[in-house]
Amino acid sequence: MSDDGFTLVLGGARSGKSAVAERLLRHSAAGRAPTYIATAEAWDDEMRARIKDHQTARDGQGWHTLEAPLDLATTLGALPADTPVLIDCLTLWLTNHLLAESDLTDQSRALGAAIAARTAPIVAVANEVGLGIVPDNALARRFRDAAGRLNQDLAAQATRVVFVAAGLPIALKGTL
Amino acid sequence: MSDDGFTLVLGGARSGKSAVAERLLRHSAAGRAPTYIATAEAWDDEMRARIKDHQTARDGQGWHTLEAPLDLATTLGALPADTPVLIDCLTLWLTNHLLAESDLTDQSRALGAAIAARTAPIVAVANEVGLGIVPDNALARRFRDAAGRLNQDLAAQATRVVFVAAGLPIALKGTL
Amino acid sequence: MSDDGFTLVLGGARSGKSAVAERLLRHSAAGRAPTYIATAEAWDDEMRARIKDHQTARDGQGWHTLEAPLDLATTLGALPADTPVLIDCLTLWLTNHLLAESDLTDQSRALGAAIAARTAPIVAVANEVGLGIVPDNALARRFRDAAGRLNQDLAAQATRVVFVAAGLPIALKGTL
Repeated sequence: MSDDGFTLVLGGARSGKSAVAERLLRHSAAGRAPTYIATAEAWDDEMRARIKDHQTARDGQGWHTLEAPLDLATTLGALPADTPVLIDCLTLWLTNHLLAESDLTDQSRALGAAIAARTAPIVAVANEVGLGIVPDNALARRFRDAAGRLNQDLAAQATRVVFVAAGLPIALKGTL
Repeated sequence: MSDDGFTLVLGGARSGKSAVAERLLRHSAAGRAPTYIATAEAWDDEMRARIKDHQTARDGQGWHTLEAPLDLATTLGALPADTPVLIDCLTLWLTNHLLAESDLTDQSRALGAAIAARTAPIVAVANEVGLGIVPDNALARRFRDAAGRLNQDLAAQATRVVFVAAGLPIALKGTL
Repeated sequence: MSDDGFTLVLGGARSGKSAVAERLLRHSAAGRAPTYIATAEAWDDEMRARIKDHQTARDGQGWHTLEAPLDLATTLGALPADTPVLIDCLTLWLTNHLLAESDLTDQSRALGAAIAARTAPIVAVANEVGLGIVPDNALARRFRDAAGRLNQDLAAQATRVVFVAAGLPIALKGTL
């Protein structure tokens, strides 16, 4: 069943991708308590409000929350193999590593291996950021390239890939 | 039949979404004269030319045109319930309200209620704007969030949601 | 068979659209040696590295490579009618013409005619650039409009249109 593997949920900003990802994981978890891994770091009030919004949406649902702005592979490796996991989101994690001047290829490879090692359902959210005009500055272009490459690598590995627009999912790989 | 409800047409700039929306409404209208509600305000020549292009495309088709840059809910409410309506587009309407410093939540709610009250087919066009790099300035980010939220709310309410790329529609909800 | 006509492959930056296009053309070519028409001009090291990446990916596959940053229609016309062709990409070609201050309507029309004259399979890659926030500067907006219009025109002419996200193709027209 596709539900038991790795699902990648892609979408734009405010596309409703997080809500779709939570729904997919809840369904796959089939009653097991899921762990939510947040990658966001709050730099300012705007960010804090955004994180708060997401947390409120999970309120009272019995999720366990971890924060892993950088050490995502280690955090995944430390969880029991049968814990359903939602990662939200990979694009922020990549941003954090870009700003930390990490080797992005190494990081992506370690993440892919950590995901492959899971036996319980795992759902990861990522932004699609390459469908606008070429950005003016070189860092934004580098980020856009890195995000696109990460999405391609993980989509190749995923058992299911879902694209979300206006809260509505369509399957690019596997079935909903 | 999905044709008699509310259809949301999403797409990027110059994606052909307006032409698809007009085709869908003409089909649903089944001979009844449709009303076109334009939300664009022409600030400059570029804008005026763009509006003119769209009007020319409807020429000789017997459409009745109304302008509602802000009072969309009121305009909808004043139309006979059995008049087929095309709204083009919601994203410009939202921009106008953002610039007018309206309460966007109130406005979105009033719009949703006005659409729900229609009995004839209604098609609304909206831009998907969240698939590029995070914008530099805070107002653009606020707009992007508001546009995404509006699209999600209306998509939840719609009987049919269509995404258009290169003039080609795919159904995200309902059937073409 | 759709394989023998004109396939348009749309996608964002780093979406994997070039790899999908190459796969589709190789399949359609059915053993005939394909010609790759590159439209990129290398202005700087970043660009050169990007072009190199794409060339490396085709290494050892027996492709013949031509460069046509501007004279795409002429280049197509000079090839034997039964040579399978991949054009990568139309959006860079359009950018080159925009910077050269060509008449974009004339150029698009000539390209459409040159594609229509092919009898062997032809696959062309183009960027979808209209799904982000409205760009600040007028030239970027003009480019965005022109790119959208070209994509619509070619999609209308194509026997198959494929949208690629995270390396995964979905058919907007025809079948994969």
